[in-house]
Amino acid sequence: VIVTAGAQQALALVARAIATARIGAGDATYNGALDAFRSAGIAVACSGDIDYVIAGVSNPHGIEIADRGALLASGRPIIVDEAYAELRFDGHLGRPLLADAPGRVWHVGTISKTISPGLRLGWLIPPTAHHDAVLELKHAADLHASSVSQAAFARLLELTCYDAVIDRARSGYADRAAICADAVARHVPGMRFAEPEGGMSMWLESDDRGDDIELLATALTYGVVFDPGSLFRPEPCEQIAMRVSFSSAPLHELDEGARRLGRALAHWRQDRRAA
Amino acid sequence: VIVTAGAQQALALVARAIATARIGAGDATYNGALDAFRSAGIAVACSGDIDYVIAGVSNPHGIEIADRGALLASGRPIIVDEAYAELRFDGHLGRPLLADAPGRVWHVGTISKTISPGLRLGWLIPPTAHHDAVLELKHAADLHASSVSQAAFARLLELTCYDAVIDRARSGYADRAAICADAVARHVPGMRFAEPEGGMSMWLESDDRGDDIELLATALTYGVVFDPGSLFRPEPCEQIAMRVSFSSAPLHELDEGARRLGRALAHWRQDRRAA
Repeated sequence: VIVTAGAQQALALVARAIATARIGAGDATYNGALDAFRSAGIAVACSGDIDYVIAGVSNPHGIEIADRGALLASGRPIIVDEAYAELRFDGHLGRPLLADAPGRVWHVGTISKTISPGLRLGWLIPPTAHHDAVLELKHAADLHASSVSQAAFARLLELTCYDAVIDRARSGYADRAAICADAVARHVPGMRFAEPEGGMSMWLESDDRGDDIELLATALTYGVVFDPGSLFRPEPCEQIAMRVSFSSAPLHELDEGARRLGRALAHWRQDRRAA
Repeated sequence: VIVTAGAQQALALVARAIATARIGAGDATYNGALDAFRSAGIAVACSGDIDYVIAGVSNPHGIEIADRGALLASGRPIIVDEAYAELRFDGHLGRPLLADAPGRVWHVGTISKTISPGLRLGWLIPPTAHHDAVLELKHAADLHASSVSQAAFARLLELTCYDAVIDRARSGYADRAAICADAVARHVPGMRFAEPEGGMSMWLESDDRGDDIELLATALTYGVVFDPGSLFRPEPCEQIAMRVSFSSAPLHELDEGARRLGRALAHWRQDRRAA
């Protein structure tokens, strides 16, 4: 296990260690992973020589989309990001892909989504054959993960019950997810989404096509914000989609936010019809 | 100012941002910088298209070796690492090269040598034209520097007198440097060195040639250790040199360490004559 500055650094190290491949990341994926891969000069597309999956709960989808059987059958290396795995609302922790394909799984974890992003602590378990090379890359990148952060986290594990912290996070996010999904269903017409299974966001897809940055500008005038779908796309896509997050807004604002999003979308659609 | 995970990450980011150059680093330099540059695929040699200098006190030399006038006159970009600048025993803080050549200086600083390496806090001031690109590289590498570390350091600055901490470190290291230099002069024949001007190590050079790893193995059998000079060389060099550190050994062990080093060196020289 190589301790890293969050899952982000783990992904950046993987990207540098596998420097020649094209990574397949599905229809949409964590934008920071796209940055890490592209920053290392690696192409990312919907499919590739190596798969990148966010196991348990995919970001931005808010649901499990990884097909375990297909991934194992493919024989390709797999980058498995478990950033949200502990935040499934049903508490189900799937068998790690690492357990079944240790020779080709790059296993990535983090405490950023459960404990604290500010500690910058994550981990990477590369296939054994790559371990020494990755350790050298880590050393050249920043010598070592913060020992102060590691000591603080170790202390926190002594002083608190980790399972209780996770349970509380899960149930808190589950409540927010239910309210957010309900609000979007009522106030934002023409958006498809799956009821979130975990995490802190949901992924809305529409049949609209166009520039989602333009839509975002309209939304801002209505006092609401979303993450434009284009940020998450491995390949350019005209379909309007977005990630909406329910992680920290006060509960009563989730409903109001959805109302405003609905109005902004109506306004934007009207402008486009007029144009 | 871009806050980084120590000076090491600052150097790694510089290396990635300037990706095409050959870096000139003099006869010997910080081995972590060599790692950072080479890990980004950049050649390092004694001289190059871009200079890397450790201003104020060079590591491993323990003295100032940067020629300010020549660097400014060269017109080349300069990577200026101030890791030890505050640890000059005379307390003299030279005018930063950044002040005179902001368009071509990559300024690197850190609290690792003065406050705590475990917090992983440093900084990079790139030339303005490179700022946005470097910020993107930093973001892709690990999102951001630990906010917990930054808060802890801010708190420490509130609660302690930073200047007094530095003064204490300076005078403590100055005492150690004097004892170490005296011990080496008495017990390790055939080694040239400059009286350290700051920092926590000194650089010994001899007229011996050979494999310093072999010498290190001999030293270990005598119960003493040094950093082999070859680690610090931008270009291969047969001359036996070494960095000896006086940062943390109990004072009375510095003299004993030098005695053992002298004996190990005599043993190694005898073996080589016999061979």
